[in-house]
Amino acid sequence: MELREPYDYVDEGTITTPAGFKAGGMHAGFRKEPGRLDMALVEADDVCSAAGVFTTNIFCAAPVTLCREHLHGQGHGLARAIVVNSGIANAATGEVGMRNAQRSAQVVSEAVGCSEQDVLVASTGIIGQHLNIEPFERCASQMHASLSSDPQGGHDFARAIMTTDTVPKECAVSYVSKAPGMEGCEIKVGGCCKGAGMIMPNMATMIGVITTDAALEGPAAHAALRAAVNVSFNKLTVDSDTSTNDSVFMLASGAAMKDLPTIRQGSEAFFELSAAVEQVCVNLARRMAQDGEGATRLVTVNVSGAANDEQADLAARAIANSPLVKTAIAGHDANWGRIAAAAGRSGATFKQEDVDIDIMGMPVLRGGLPVEFDEDEALRRFEQPEVVIDVGLGAGPASTTMWTCDFTHDYISINGDYRS
Amino acid sequence: MELREPYDYVDEGTITTPAGFKAGGMHAGFRKEPGRLDMALVEADDVCSAAGVFTTNIFCAAPVTLCREHLHGQGHGLARAIVVNSGIANAATGEVGMRNAQRSAQVVSEAVGCSEQDVLVASTGIIGQHLNIEPFERCASQMHASLSSDPQGGHDFARAIMTTDTVPKECAVSYVSKAPGMEGCEIKVGGCCKGAGMIMPNMATMIGVITTDAALEGPAAHAALRAAVNVSFNKLTVDSDTSTNDSVFMLASGAAMKDLPTIRQGSEAFFELSAAVEQVCVNLARRMAQDGEGATRLVTVNVSGAANDEQADLAARAIANSPLVKTAIAGHDANWGRIAAAAGRSGATFKQEDVDIDIMGMPVLRGGLPVEFDEDEALRRFEQPEVVIDVGLGAGPASTTMWTCDFTHDYISINGDYRS
Repeated sequence: MELREPYDYVDEGTITTPAGFKAGGMHAGFRKEPGRLDMALVEADDVCSAAGVFTTNIFCAAPVTLCREHLHGQGHGLARAIVVNSGIANAATGEVGMRNAQRSAQVVSEAVGCSEQDVLVASTGIIGQHLNIEPFERCASQMHASLSSDPQGGHDFARAIMTTDTVPKECAVSYVSKAPGMEGCEIKVGGCCKGAGMIMPNMATMIGVITTDAALEGPAAHAALRAAVNVSFNKLTVDSDTSTNDSVFMLASGAAMKDLPTIRQGSEAFFELSAAVEQVCVNLARRMAQDGEGATRLVTVNVSGAANDEQADLAARAIANSPLVKTAIAGHDANWGRIAAAAGRSGATFKQEDVDIDIMGMPVLRGGLPVEFDEDEALRRFEQPEVVIDVGLGAGPASTTMWTCDFTHDYISINGDYRS
Repeated sequence: MELREPYDYVDEGTITTPAGFKAGGMHAGFRKEPGRLDMALVEADDVCSAAGVFTTNIFCAAPVTLCREHLHGQGHGLARAIVVNSGIANAATGEVGMRNAQRSAQVVSEAVGCSEQDVLVASTGIIGQHLNIEPFERCASQMHASLSSDPQGGHDFARAIMTTDTVPKECAVSYVSKAPGMEGCEIKVGGCCKGAGMIMPNMATMIGVITTDAALEGPAAHAALRAAVNVSFNKLTVDSDTSTNDSVFMLASGAAMKDLPTIRQGSEAFFELSAAVEQVCVNLARRMAQDGEGATRLVTVNVSGAANDEQADLAARAIANSPLVKTAIAGHDANWGRIAAAAGRSGATFKQEDVDIDIMGMPVLRGGLPVEFDEDEALRRFEQPEVVIDVGLGAGPASTTMWTCDFTHDYISINGDYRS
């Protein structure tokens, strides 16, 4: 596939940047701190194509189960609104949890004026406790009335879904189509997510919402979303734990293509749009890797020369999940040995004597044997906010990239200090 | 298989406890500190059956490659001596490293008076640096002359192989056979190992030596060793990294069965002996999980009700490798949610609503839903040196046990602090 120039980012890009959406956030009372935004809502002006990709953890939360039903078990369908609450994850809550999730969707559908099936829900926060429905009932109409299609609406949504994040994560890109049948049409893709680099004692969850004003059917939206998630959020690891609540949604309003036929999967227009969705998701995933109390830098692991995609992923994942690799980076140690050992036990097939490793652009291993490097230069390069590790396995054509962060004392403090 | 009473431990049990072996350790100069034992040698009185199980890491060290050759690529053969040096791992050293490993075997074979093929070698320490042969040449004869079949010889061996261990790890068991053809014959199995719970900046390696005065052929010894390793050392994880140098050896002198036929694989005598080898290996593996700077307790993870052995292992391993689970234990937090999420992403198949979890004997999850527990009692139980986690998946008959340790600030300090 030919290399594309990245699309331009829109200033103050957010989920309301594409036409046809309004959003907002408020303090409904799920969280105790007054003024802390804890309920977020995004609505499309009209019912639109929707897609969802969810956690594969067997312990999946009630809201995830409900969304799967609303998307007919296929990951795509129609939707009008997505509501997110933070503070309670509604996970490990059994039948009562399912009823609460359904009730929250019903309450929001009444406020929005749509069918209950057209509301998607997400929750993030403490697991094992029941979801309080009263804030939904008290606030849904007010929430709906206060939504805005301005950037501020998207910013409020992005803040309201945060739990352990230290910063909101949102962006949008725009491009002018060159595809036959829609030349000159300007398309926007926006996105926001939450999910910190460091996972707090209560399960931090990855929630993402992607919006576009392109017109496409559910299956095409799902295909674009899944492909983007596979090379972005699924290539992000901090401590390799998958939350019970991970959810990424995409809504396509079609508002930029009102008189044009929907974008067909596999067409040139589809590839243009997929590239935009991927660009937004990668941007958000990298921000998540950077965020988090305790992380001091983004770590990018590039594996090339793997026998196939699965093996590239095994090797990159083993390196990115290795506590030894990540503590070394925190300690400014260009430790190729730990990287090599992680690749060597990953299950990827290669020969020791074919392996090359570079750390921050400095060769440290060539043909499986260490090479001299300038340690002062390495220390200088460690000052950068991103550390790139390149590993060549010399065993085939496949490559992949994963993102993680380094592993510091703060990780232990956040996750393991004595209960008060 | 019927439950056996454990065999009796021998006081001051060591690798010289079984008849037919002598061992020792000395300061040869691989390590700089004067008096620090860094070269270990064990010899059988006569050439004997030998078996070896080695790291599966693709980045395997020169000594591992040499041992595989000496054991004919099958993991078993004949041997007379095992020599171990600490300080230099002789890994990532290419052809020069292979020649150095061969030379060390040759030097020792001349001192012992056996063929070079009958010497097995192991190294542990810094990777990427070349092995210094001079200490072998200078000390081999002296080392051979100073060996002892007393317990002290075994103790010195156990100390000389240590790198990051805070205590030597050795034990021996004895039993009186009830098997047809050797009733009343007393058999001993001894073992020692090194490999700390915490892995230091330089790759810590697991090295184990098992000795027995039972008589058995190479293939039978390999079968017994492999089975024991699979339920002991391979069920031990601290930060899931496999060293480039892991090696476990077994030597069978036959000295307790001089006029008896060798023990045949699959016989009742073989099962008696296998149980002893397993008991010794499990004892040593648990000690390794407990040791290590920073670990404050042994963590035992029992998974039952898995669909098959592989899935039991996946689930147990995901829990035992989870930084979130291990920081929680360090923080005295009976956090079932993290355990459940780890099992849920492990790849094991089960239903959320079938899962039961107990922490330190206290039920915390039943049928996938949390149960109340006495938090004060939990804090009391956290004072114990061992924390047991029991997870029932309700999906089949398979079970497994893994050992690990908790994850504290000291892990980060040891592995990631700034280079001096």
